[in-house]
Amino acid sequence: VKAFLAERRTEIAAFLERELAAAEGPFSLISPWGADVAQRLRGFSTRGKMIRGGLVAMGAQLFGTEANADVVRAGAVMELIQSFLLIHDDIMDRDTSRRGEESVFSQYAGLARAEGIEDWYHLGEALGTCVGDVAMLYAFDILEGLEGDDAVRSRVRRLVSREITYVGLAQMSDLYFGETQRPVSEQEVIDLYRYKTGRYTFSLPLSVGAVLAGRGDTEVAVLSRLGEKLGIIFQIKDDELGLFGSETQTGKPQGSDIAENKKTLFRRRLFDRASGAEQQELSRLFGNRELSSDGVSRVLELLRRHGIPEEIDEVLVSWAERAREDVEELARTTDADVEMLRELLSYNLSRSS
Amino acid sequence: VKAFLAERRTEIAAFLERELAAAEGPFSLISPWGADVAQRLRGFSTRGKMIRGGLVAMGAQLFGTEANADVVRAGAVMELIQSFLLIHDDIMDRDTSRRGEESVFSQYAGLARAEGIEDWYHLGEALGTCVGDVAMLYAFDILEGLEGDDAVRSRVRRLVSREITYVGLAQMSDLYFGETQRPVSEQEVIDLYRYKTGRYTFSLPLSVGAVLAGRGDTEVAVLSRLGEKLGIIFQIKDDELGLFGSETQTGKPQGSDIAENKKTLFRRRLFDRASGAEQQELSRLFGNRELSSDGVSRVLELLRRHGIPEEIDEVLVSWAERAREDVEELARTTDADVEMLRELLSYNLSRSS
Repeated sequence: VKAFLAERRTEIAAFLERELAAAEGPFSLISPWGADVAQRLRGFSTRGKMIRGGLVAMGAQLFGTEANADVVRAGAVMELIQSFLLIHDDIMDRDTSRRGEESVFSQYAGLARAEGIEDWYHLGEALGTCVGDVAMLYAFDILEGLEGDDAVRSRVRRLVSREITYVGLAQMSDLYFGETQRPVSEQEVIDLYRYKTGRYTFSLPLSVGAVLAGRGDTEVAVLSRLGEKLGIIFQIKDDELGLFGSETQTGKPQGSDIAENKKTLFRRRLFDRASGAEQQELSRLFGNRELSSDGVSRVLELLRRHGIPEEIDEVLVSWAERAREDVEELARTTDADVEMLRELLSYNLSRSS
Repeated sequence: VKAFLAERRTEIAAFLERELAAAEGPFSLISPWGADVAQRLRGFSTRGKMIRGGLVAMGAQLFGTEANADVVRAGAVMELIQSFLLIHDDIMDRDTSRRGEESVFSQYAGLARAEGIEDWYHLGEALGTCVGDVAMLYAFDILEGLEGDDAVRSRVRRLVSREITYVGLAQMSDLYFGETQRPVSEQEVIDLYRYKTGRYTFSLPLSVGAVLAGRGDTEVAVLSRLGEKLGIIFQIKDDELGLFGSETQTGKPQGSDIAENKKTLFRRRLFDRASGAEQQELSRLFGNRELSSDGVSRVLELLRRHGIPEEIDEVLVSWAERAREDVEELARTTDADVEMLRELLSYNLSRSS
């Protein structure tokens, strides 16, 4: 799986390099910022891991279609959309670094500040929002360049526009859950994982790949269901790594989800099991932006004391079983070569970074 | 022209009502905010004047095609995209009212504040950004529902994705020009009017209409050039009304463009003609957020003293002549019924609100 995704990454990156280099000319006719935007988007979008782009190729490969021009193009579209989402996310979360560099809006804020503009931070946010918008809109422009059968292209576009609309809605839940004082239920947590990570990161690209391989509603329906489960597993593992993994593994400080009061499944279960006194203590630790390493250790201690890691392992096993059922259904009802999906599931369950 | 646009407005509003009412169900499955977003977008997008939607119908009508289902659909797409742009604009400009009600992000900020959320203003901005994103993405989803010829639909989608990408870039110029201390040249001002207002408000919808009427590159090229000029005229009149019109006419306080230091053609010409001492005085008046009505009067006095309104009238006459040439070219080289375009030009030149 890793080797397959890495090969596709090279092809998609080359495509994005070409497309965004070609955009510099037209963009610069429109605005003094045009060439700058094309260059920054080119650098930013080619620095990602390109999981989503690669999964488009995997969805096609399942049904015997190699990474042809349309597959690479659709993969590149996924990555440009991912860039749009991350650029807007970083503004919303006030994250000043991303993909190993300064985040896009923060780069513009820095330029404005250097020019002596009074309202530099807000101008950075505003310019960053525009760059995100441009990334998404240009993604649709690139998507229009698909060359295959009309009906296939239409189905791909419909999948993309519909599912990314839903990502916008899921992002609203995520933002709200991060700030509200009201309890967030386990169902709400799982639904967020399902729509923000599952459908977007797994269901959509795998389905797009299958459609590009000429497949219809049956295959898309199973892949969509499977993708939701893969995403839920992926996100729970992400939360686990954020709590118990090191900064080297995850790229962010250990316990940052606690400081940010992220409404994870671990948090939900811990509050459900904790005593009244512990709940009060936890309320002071979760959402504390100046959380010390002692504070992080205390949360981990309480998680272990209440057996939450073991509970979550059971949850993972249960979702993995359901994901396996989807994989076997696909093997039984279609001619899909599902070995790669089995590997993808194992990867999601075992990854350590 | 006004009657034509008003009739189309009714049809487009009905279409948007239906589409966004139908979206409530699916949206609410994704997020607890889903139904709320569909309702707010429905209210917001049906409250506009719908000039752009109506101009799609005019572009089709020029070539004898009535407002059929595809024309209304494409008009509704323009209006939903306009909603996306306004929702993001209001965040960028910190405008708390729009279309006679509280602006969308400000509504969400109010909800967050009422719930006692500490970071309520920022959460309002973030949720508003998402709602804008959803409006744009769902606009592409609706656009996918066009039913005509494949090649026609593809050309329409391409026009939309390309031109709205360019609006994002032009918006960056607008934001930057509003904040920078460096002089903004007359060419930069006109280019901004060309791309932000002209191509978006006039060239794009007229071209989409012409393409839906089965017309090709020749017609689109002339309409695009004409649209740029109509937009430049429209925007200069807008600036004029903002300076010399009343709040009843424009819906915003007289002189607010001065307080916001908007880089208009009036401002550019005034600085070009003013003496050194006057320039210093003007620098204190433009961009003064607490500008008094005496301050506004002083700017108007200097504008009149230097004959700027007369200069600008000449500029308008010159653009109108060039627009007329495009209209006559269209009449000469195609079978377009250009009477409505002549009326549209007169309307842009003479409007008082």
